[in-house]
Amino acid sequence: MRATLLYGADDVRVEDVADPKIQNPTDAVVRIVLSCICGSDLWPYKSAPSTDNPRHMGHEFLGVVEETGSAVAGVKPGDVVVAPFVYSDNTCAYCREGLQTSCAHGGTWGVNGVDGGQGQAARVPQADGTLVKLPVGEDSELLPDLLTLSDILCTGYHAARTAGVTRGDSVTVIGDGAVGLAAVISAKLLGAEQIILMGRHQVRTDLGRDFGATGVVAERGEEGIARVRELTGGEGTRKVLECVGLKDAIVQSFGVVRDGGTVSRVGAPQHSEVPFGFGDFMRNVTLTGGVAPARAYIDELMPHILTGSIRPGRVFDRTIGLEDIADGYRAMNDREALKVLVRP
Amino acid sequence: MRATLLYGADDVRVEDVADPKIQNPTDAVVRIVLSCICGSDLWPYKSAPSTDNPRHMGHEFLGVVEETGSAVAGVKPGDVVVAPFVYSDNTCAYCREGLQTSCAHGGTWGVNGVDGGQGQAARVPQADGTLVKLPVGEDSELLPDLLTLSDILCTGYHAARTAGVTRGDSVTVIGDGAVGLAAVISAKLLGAEQIILMGRHQVRTDLGRDFGATGVVAERGEEGIARVRELTGGEGTRKVLECVGLKDAIVQSFGVVRDGGTVSRVGAPQHSEVPFGFGDFMRNVTLTGGVAPARAYIDELMPHILTGSIRPGRVFDRTIGLEDIADGYRAMNDREALKVLVRP
Repeated sequence: MRATLLYGADDVRVEDVADPKIQNPTDAVVRIVLSCICGSDLWPYKSAPSTDNPRHMGHEFLGVVEETGSAVAGVKPGDVVVAPFVYSDNTCAYCREGLQTSCAHGGTWGVNGVDGGQGQAARVPQADGTLVKLPVGEDSELLPDLLTLSDILCTGYHAARTAGVTRGDSVTVIGDGAVGLAAVISAKLLGAEQIILMGRHQVRTDLGRDFGATGVVAERGEEGIARVRELTGGEGTRKVLECVGLKDAIVQSFGVVRDGGTVSRVGAPQHSEVPFGFGDFMRNVTLTGGVAPARAYIDELMPHILTGSIRPGRVFDRTIGLEDIADGYRAMNDREALKVLVRP
Repeated sequence: MRATLLYGADDVRVEDVADPKIQNPTDAVVRIVLSCICGSDLWPYKSAPSTDNPRHMGHEFLGVVEETGSAVAGVKPGDVVVAPFVYSDNTCAYCREGLQTSCAHGGTWGVNGVDGGQGQAARVPQADGTLVKLPVGEDSELLPDLLTLSDILCTGYHAARTAGVTRGDSVTVIGDGAVGLAAVISAKLLGAEQIILMGRHQVRTDLGRDFGATGVVAERGEEGIARVRELTGGEGTRKVLECVGLKDAIVQSFGVVRDGGTVSRVGAPQHSEVPFGFGDFMRNVTLTGGVAPARAYIDELMPHILTGSIRPGRVFDRTIGLEDIADGYRAMNDREALKVLVRP
């Protein structure tokens, strides 16, 4: 089959790789119908060293089950399914607590002999725990929306949930990428009254307004912080959803959070030290979040998509074929595209 | 009156200062019956630069109301009262939410013309919001226990509450100082089943066992982390209460917390950057806590002291007169004494 491989910074290739086969009784093989490029794919795209041992890319996909191992009971050939961005058994103690990202039998796509999601098919380990059946056909118009369950919608929702967003709450979302926009949707779902989106790309922040942002702040740094404080009676918002991952975004988060408030970070941190010292200690600021256990939220979020009450798939502003994926990476990296759909 | 002044590192003096007087209608004047030295007093004791403008020391005291301003309604002369380690109006939005440390009309003892607690008396701003009446006489044997309501018991409790300690929980307490021991008491009050106390001073950790610790780990760093993991099936505890304030203690906290768990820090951080990067992000670790709004917890905790079900005053292992307070600082700093009571 054809799959996407990263040979180094700026070097994405689509090549022939081995067809996926059942290796363990708990595996399934899924023919991929829809996949996409993630903002987090851009970190290695920008910085990975050159290698002859390329990385298999992609961790967001949905498709049709083609074959199942002998121990798989929950899905069968022909089922349309979505895969969260980590696989997990969904039965261990961590999984039962909704922390599938810490599953002892789980892992990530594209490493240790597991396929990536940006290809024509994938072997899915722990298929019963991982795959979630979608009650639609493979030609459904809802597929782009449902694909967001694999990562960005659940990641934005994880930010809002771990921050403890509740009805009437005030929330700042930092970052107007796909995850930031999903965080806006999520804050609104949980009943936030004030949702301030910090971002500089008007096409994106306009979509954020459609999704529920009540205000947009384009300024950054001290100026942006001052602007959010103006909008909140000087205090900042009770919750801040940090959807970027850069140190500046964390500094900005602490700057706009109200005393006693919570910053939840879901942008993968590109820094090892967090500037979170005595001042924020005196203000009783909490820093929570982390990698999203998408599997934990899919059942809860899917109905909102099926009824059309949320349309997270609007973040996809370009669709390409698999063979053109290198240009998709380029377009996202150049901020020409917000998020790119890939049809294998 | 006589009061304690810090002129620089290792230079504590008891001197004559102006007697406290009502300055605002919301003030009260309290004759101090019992005070103490705090672990946090040792930071400036160890490091403050020499000055001719000495700092008024002390933020934990109880005593008898001598005089009240015209707007004070909640306490009257003769009342025995305890003061939390910050004063607050207890009516603003932050106070009503239980975050009296962020009160717009609040502040700390010993600065801006407000007396410290290590003296013979103090003017108490926002007396109605700040002072809590104690239903005992000034000769009560419970006074040392009740004095812990001004800081350490509430600080330990803040750690446990912000960490979300619940019935059946597993908790590591880092630090065997007075706050760490109060955190043990608090974790037990909230129903924790496993309470591991990390500390190296056996007299203190023995007291910790009396207070409810189910295990003690004397090792530090990697060795200490490994030991806690041994005691918890390899996973670490769900909650970690960091009662030290040093960077090593935070590193240790992240090392012993279970995936998805919470570290609450109540030791004033002596560092501005927290080593809290990608690895802990992938484990969904939360960092919460902060300076304790002691006032928020006094009403809830006092009954446990009055009934004798907890005896936090056992942390006091030395009693001195005010004139000898310099030796009290020395003894605590040399770890000769755990916590020193001061009788003015």
